Amino acid sequence: MNISPLQKARYEYQPKLPGMLRNGVAEICVKEGQPTQSVADQEKIAALFPNTYGKKEITFEKGKNTSKAKKHVVGVILSGGQAPGGHNVVSGLYDALKATNKDNVLLGFKGGPSGLLEDSYVEFTDEFINEYRNTGGFDIIGSGRTKLETVEQFKVVEEVAKKHNLTAIVIIGGDDSNTNAAVLAEYMAAQNTGVQVIGCPKTIDGDLKNEDIEASFGFDTATKTYSELIGNIERDANSAKKYWHFIKVMGRSASHVALECALETQPNICLIGEEVAEKKMSLAQITNYIADSVEKRANNGNNFGVAIIPEGIVEFVPEFGALIKEINELLAGEKTEKFNALPDWAAKYDFIKNGLTKEAFAVFDLLPQGIQQQLFLERDPHGNVQVSLIESEKLFSELVKNELAKRKKAGTYKGKFGAQHHFFGYEGRCAFPSNFDADYCYSLGYNAFMLIQYGYTGYLSKVSNISKPAVEWVAGGMPITKMFNMERRNGEDKPVIRKALVELDGKPFKFFEANREKWAVETCFTFPGAIQYYGPAEVCDLTTRTLALEKG
Amino acid sequence: MNISPLQKARYEYQPKLPGMLRNGVAEICVKEGQPTQSVADQEKIAALFPNTYGKKEITFEKGKNTSKAKKHVVGVILSGGQAPGGHNVVSGLYDALKATNKDNVLLGFKGGPSGLLEDSYVEFTDEFINEYRNTGGFDIIGSGRTKLETVEQFKVVEEVAKKHNLTAIVIIGGDDSNTNAAVLAEYMAAQNTGVQVIGCPKTIDGDLKNEDIEASFGFDTATKTYSELIGNIERDANSAKKYWHFIKVMGRSASHVALECALETQPNICLIGEEVAEKKMSLAQITNYIADSVEKRANNGNNFGVAIIPEGIVEFVPEFGALIKEINELLAGEKTEKFNALPDWAAKYDFIKNGLTKEAFAVFDLLPQGIQQQLFLERDPHGNVQVSLIESEKLFSELVKNELAKRKKAGTYKGKFGAQHHFFGYEGRCAFPSNFDADYCYSLGYNAFMLIQYGYTGYLSKVSNISKPAVEWVAGGMPITKMFNMERRNGEDKPVIRKALVELDGKPFKFFEANREKWAVETCFTFPGAIQYYGPAEVCDLTTRTLALEKG
Repeated sequence: MNISPLQKARYEYQPKLPGMLRNGVAEICVKEGQPTQSVADQEKIAALFPNTYGKKEITFEKGKNTSKAKKHVVGVILSGGQAPGGHNVVSGLYDALKATNKDNVLLGFKGGPSGLLEDSYVEFTDEFINEYRNTGGFDIIGSGRTKLETVEQFKVVEEVAKKHNLTAIVIIGGDDSNTNAAVLAEYMAAQNTGVQVIGCPKTIDGDLKNEDIEASFGFDTATKTYSELIGNIERDANSAKKYWHFIKVMGRSASHVALECALETQPNICLIGEEVAEKKMSLAQITNYIADSVEKRANNGNNFGVAIIPEGIVEFVPEFGALIKEINELLAGEKTEKFNALPDWAAKYDFIKNGLTKEAFAVFDLLPQGIQQQLFLERDPHGNVQVSLIESEKLFSELVKNELAKRKKAGTYKGKFGAQHHFFGYEGRCAFPSNFDADYCYSLGYNAFMLIQYGYTGYLSKVSNISKPAVEWVAGGMPITKMFNMERRNGEDKPVIRKALVELDGKPFKFFEANREKWAVETCFTFPGAIQYYGPAEVCDLTTRTLALEKG
Repeated sequence: MNISPLQKARYEYQPKLPGMLRNGVAEICVKEGQPTQSVADQEKIAALFPNTYGKKEITFEKGKNTSKAKKHVVGVILSGGQAPGGHNVVSGLYDALKATNKDNVLLGFKGGPSGLLEDSYVEFTDEFINEYRNTGGFDIIGSGRTKLETVEQFKVVEEVAKKHNLTAIVIIGGDDSNTNAAVLAEYMAAQNTGVQVIGCPKTIDGDLKNEDIEASFGFDTATKTYSELIGNIERDANSAKKYWHFIKVMGRSASHVALECALETQPNICLIGEEVAEKKMSLAQITNYIADSVEKRANNGNNFGVAIIPEGIVEFVPEFGALIKEINELLAGEKTEKFNALPDWAAKYDFIKNGLTKEAFAVFDLLPQGIQQQLFLERDPHGNVQVSLIESEKLFSELVKNELAKRKKAGTYKGKFGAQHHFFGYEGRCAFPSNFDADYCYSLGYNAFMLIQYGYTGYLSKVSNISKPAVEWVAGGMPITKMFNMERRNGEDKPVIRKALVELDGKPFKFFEANREKWAVETCFTFPGAIQYYGPAEVCDLTTRTLALEKG
């Protein structure tokens, strides 16, 4: 095996724990707080979670450990998309478990939730864990997207737990996975299995965030990696002075990633899906907004710039959503066959023109031909348009190009416009975790075992005050049901953790809003550079701009 | 202005000079070596450079500075594509010049060679330079691609030089720019202008390399940045276990970047253009080579992988080159109009089928339709196919997909194949220079002024022994004509620096060749992580694997 010099060096990094967890497991006691309520729909949720609802918030503090001595066998799974720091949650959990009792066992179930269903696992040892400390990726046990949500699945999990004498299961995942962790916890309690369930908040998208979760892990490292690249591209744009770079970043349902990258790099343009939805912006409005920046900059002799586009942006444009709905109708059932039988694109185009409402067709007609064809030709097995395949960075650069051509004809625009396109997603999900994520994740894992040891279930491992140095962090737990509300999902009312969207009256967006007019015209680029794991603390222990602004 | 924490910290970095330049300018003397000869075509090149050919190689050493006291006004330009470290060449040059005499002046001509022709410049001051120390980009004065090669241009440069009393011009650029530096030096000498010309070897492509230039600057930082991303993607691939990632990296005429990235990250596949050309590989052969790896890995249950594709790869495939030639013929002159007038793609396809030779059509027919259309529809102003627009990463993933479909039908392949595509170029050209590039570039600039002070012209600033710690580096100069040979360019024989291609019997390729069979089937990924500027020397002062292997 060939290990990079950085990986070798990172093995030696000792993640920082919250001050109250630094005195050894024998010196950690529980302070119980008030009973909790869900953020909304309290009665419904209380009824659905009779065994786990309304429990007390707890924090840990220095003091004699009064937990019951008991051998623990804990199972852990990684669920959903990769996020930097997952390996540290596992190693923190392992270290706390082994520090408490050498006979305690940690099993890693492989390939995500399906590992738990298929009883595919590995038993962790020091040697095994040591190869993954402070590294990126979820390759320690793999991950997967199977959802644990049905009673049939829970029964299988119960059997597997019984076979291994599991005392607890730790689920590391996003909002859906933690929602499911709470449901599983309730099931296990209702069945008197004695199996506790603890969740850990993961996602680079940053949309698992609320009163109790200041940040999901991985967001810090992923956005720093994207910002490194965006800053490098900005510097290139400002050196060569000949291209507009349209950069798409991950984040389908929320624009936290785009916003954080914008705060770190100060590009000319950054679209925010939540604002587009709130203001019911049209494609033409967005196009004009970007074209205005291009034009003003061109007037100053600057025929270059950088625009950040969140992955899911088109889904936030109301008229685009309406178009997609009509297209899905237009091709529903056997109509697809009829459509496919048409001889060429010209015939298909006529069919579309006749089939869509005037409003929808006007939107359709704005689109570049490549995207028009994509909407009709590449559909999922149910015949639906695959919005996620739309290359929104290319869509907007094309629309802007067309708009500028009009303005050139009209004599208002005299510049040159050349575009380059980029998409950053996979590049950041498995980076070596930043010091912040390494510390935060290790603490989440360590803390998860403290919750297990003290007998809690249906709790989220909670580490807060994380905009401060680690020694001031607060470790504790929160019933997952506290974060619940009822939402309509697939035609059913379900108790779920609400996805956190970018708040248009929140401080990060407000800061962006207050500066973006200037950024759009001037060149205010900032170059964060590569994540540093060593060196001055102000460089290597920085957290996100989002968190810094939110916490004042 | 908002400056990132890393940028602030990097301002404080003091680049390391070669030991012999560390005693202050008063303690640097010249040691002359042997007269030099061009690497080939000595007589022709000697005749073309009567004033600058055959000069002696020189090195600097500790000793009394015996250069003539003289006020220097030096002009500097950045030429061609951005490369990390350009700002450090300028700051090293500035520091040496000011350390010698506070009245010396450094002028930066803006926007590349055109700045010299248009007399667009800035005079550097401490305050100005300090904002650019150890930063990426060429934004300090901008760059450009104008070529300085005609006598008319030289006359303009002569006038501009006279106006500013320039004593020397430093040209920071790639092989073409340094070739032109030598021609300009000869002109200035022949005209008795007293203006010296010094070149500095820049390019992230790594193809400016020879007996005298161990590495061009920027290659180290750019390849480390790409390798960071490739490593992150590898880790993601190995965690999610569901995608093959096809990653294109910059490098049109040589595959040094791809090879270096492969040595750093150990992907399953890396194509090398020089090998494809040497072995006259066909598209089908390359496709099969990749498909074999996909199939073998699938047999082991690994339906994922990483393939690195150099940007210019298709131009190295002989049959593809032949096809392009035929297409250019087929559409030459008025034939384009006839072609464009055909009603639809089916008619155009027939026209193509009838117009190409059987061999060329067979190659054409292999291509995915999108690329077929691109070849015919997107041509440059001369009607030629724009090979550089071909997305080779998508081409090969498409060809592999088709091949795997065949194998699935035949029952030999049973895996799943999903592909993701990436292109890394702009992401690395303006990164903060690694410690190596920061040191190397600063030394090149500092050393360039030593050459100027001692009256040399037509020389390249040469810093060698760079696989060792900086204190052991050797500073000196080499007549640029020593690197010359005659080559056919645009129908004329011209004296030029030869582009360095990947040598198939060189140690870097040999190492790759010895390991790639194993890498193709097993998962031997290595994760270099982000460039570190601080921390353990084995992490932050590493040079490239290419250089390490070349220097044993």
